[in-house]
Amino acid sequence: MTEVAERPVLDTLDPAGRALLFTEARTANTFADIPVSDEELASIWELARWAPTAANTQPLRVLYVRPGEGRDRLVKFMNEGNQAKTAAAPAVAVLAVDTRFHEHIPTVFPMRPQMKDFFEANEEFREKGGNFNAALQAGYFILAVRALGLAAGPMTGFDAPGLDSEFFPDGRFRSILVVNIGHPGENPWYNRLPRLDHDDVIIWA
Amino acid sequence: MTEVAERPVLDTLDPAGRALLFTEARTANTFADIPVSDEELASIWELARWAPTAANTQPLRVLYVRPGEGRDRLVKFMNEGNQAKTAAAPAVAVLAVDTRFHEHIPTVFPMRPQMKDFFEANEEFREKGGNFNAALQAGYFILAVRALGLAAGPMTGFDAPGLDSEFFPDGRFRSILVVNIGHPGENPWYNRLPRLDHDDVIIWA
Repeated sequence: MTEVAERPVLDTLDPAGRALLFTEARTANTFADIPVSDEELASIWELARWAPTAANTQPLRVLYVRPGEGRDRLVKFMNEGNQAKTAAAPAVAVLAVDTRFHEHIPTVFPMRPQMKDFFEANEEFREKGGNFNAALQAGYFILAVRALGLAAGPMTGFDAPGLDSEFFPDGRFRSILVVNIGHPGENPWYNRLPRLDHDDVIIWA
Repeated sequence: MTEVAERPVLDTLDPAGRALLFTEARTANTFADIPVSDEELASIWELARWAPTAANTQPLRVLYVRPGEGRDRLVKFMNEGNQAKTAAAPAVAVLAVDTRFHEHIPTVFPMRPQMKDFFEANEEFREKGGNFNAALQAGYFILAVRALGLAAGPMTGFDAPGLDSEFFPDGRFRSILVVNIGHPGENPWYNRLPRLDHDDVIIWA
């Protein structure tokens, strides 16, 4: 029965896991007064980092902002409707793309170190690849927050150039998403918004 | 104890779930001769569709290609190194961005239907938002494939303009990722590539 050993059989995610990550998970708009530890924040990345990116490029960077002076500086770059939420979140992640992610290619994709030079010479390709793969990793990141039993509050409503000049002054990192992280507070969820019908999304060939 | 009822306590994902989706999951390069049913393919979307997008815009579209004439047409647009894998996969998903996703805004974001007109008038903003949110959803999709007990083989190495003109001739959808889907075959994994150190990714503020 050698063949069986060579063909791994994968489990499926149980109903509790499906509910936690996908079907019952909700974007939190209030947070309980319960701290989120640095260990928890590191654990989020310990999960998210393993999911795949093209040529293993991993362009996403994570700025973790804890309550205090850093968060005060961050809140003022959020759109008005997002400021109170971010000011109340026990932790906030600023997700950013490393625009020079290709410098790591000799380490992360050792079978083709010359891809570094290709990306260096092709700015459009580099920017497109960085943006796409960082967004892909942002998706993994949100689900990893949920896997840790934390609620995520992802937001694109913020002054990205202002935030970047404050937190990433050398211009290498460009923020793409701000994610409030914490335990849900009182009345944390809005009514769920409708999802598109399968027929609006899925095409069969 | 009203307060407790108002503050939901979330579970955490168990070790088997973390292994399945993140820490032990691998990109499959071979597939067993076991079909993937249309019900399984629909179930992938039934999970992935619930994860969040900015203003609930949901720009991702999914073309499922089954073995046969459709897959034969698809394979020739894959890069040479990806053709055999896609030809052997029992199902393939072409993930694409709907460049006119904003037409659904009155349905999916009913509190601000006028955002449709904003996107209509701002092509750069529309393209950026569509690309970002579709890539975010591609991340959810890959983890949803794994949640169903299936192996995913995501690839960016294909002729996207060629594929689009063959499968999306009206120009509305633009492909961003092709994902082989199936049960792992013999020797399905390469050696795992290194992930960046936490210190290369995480910044604390």
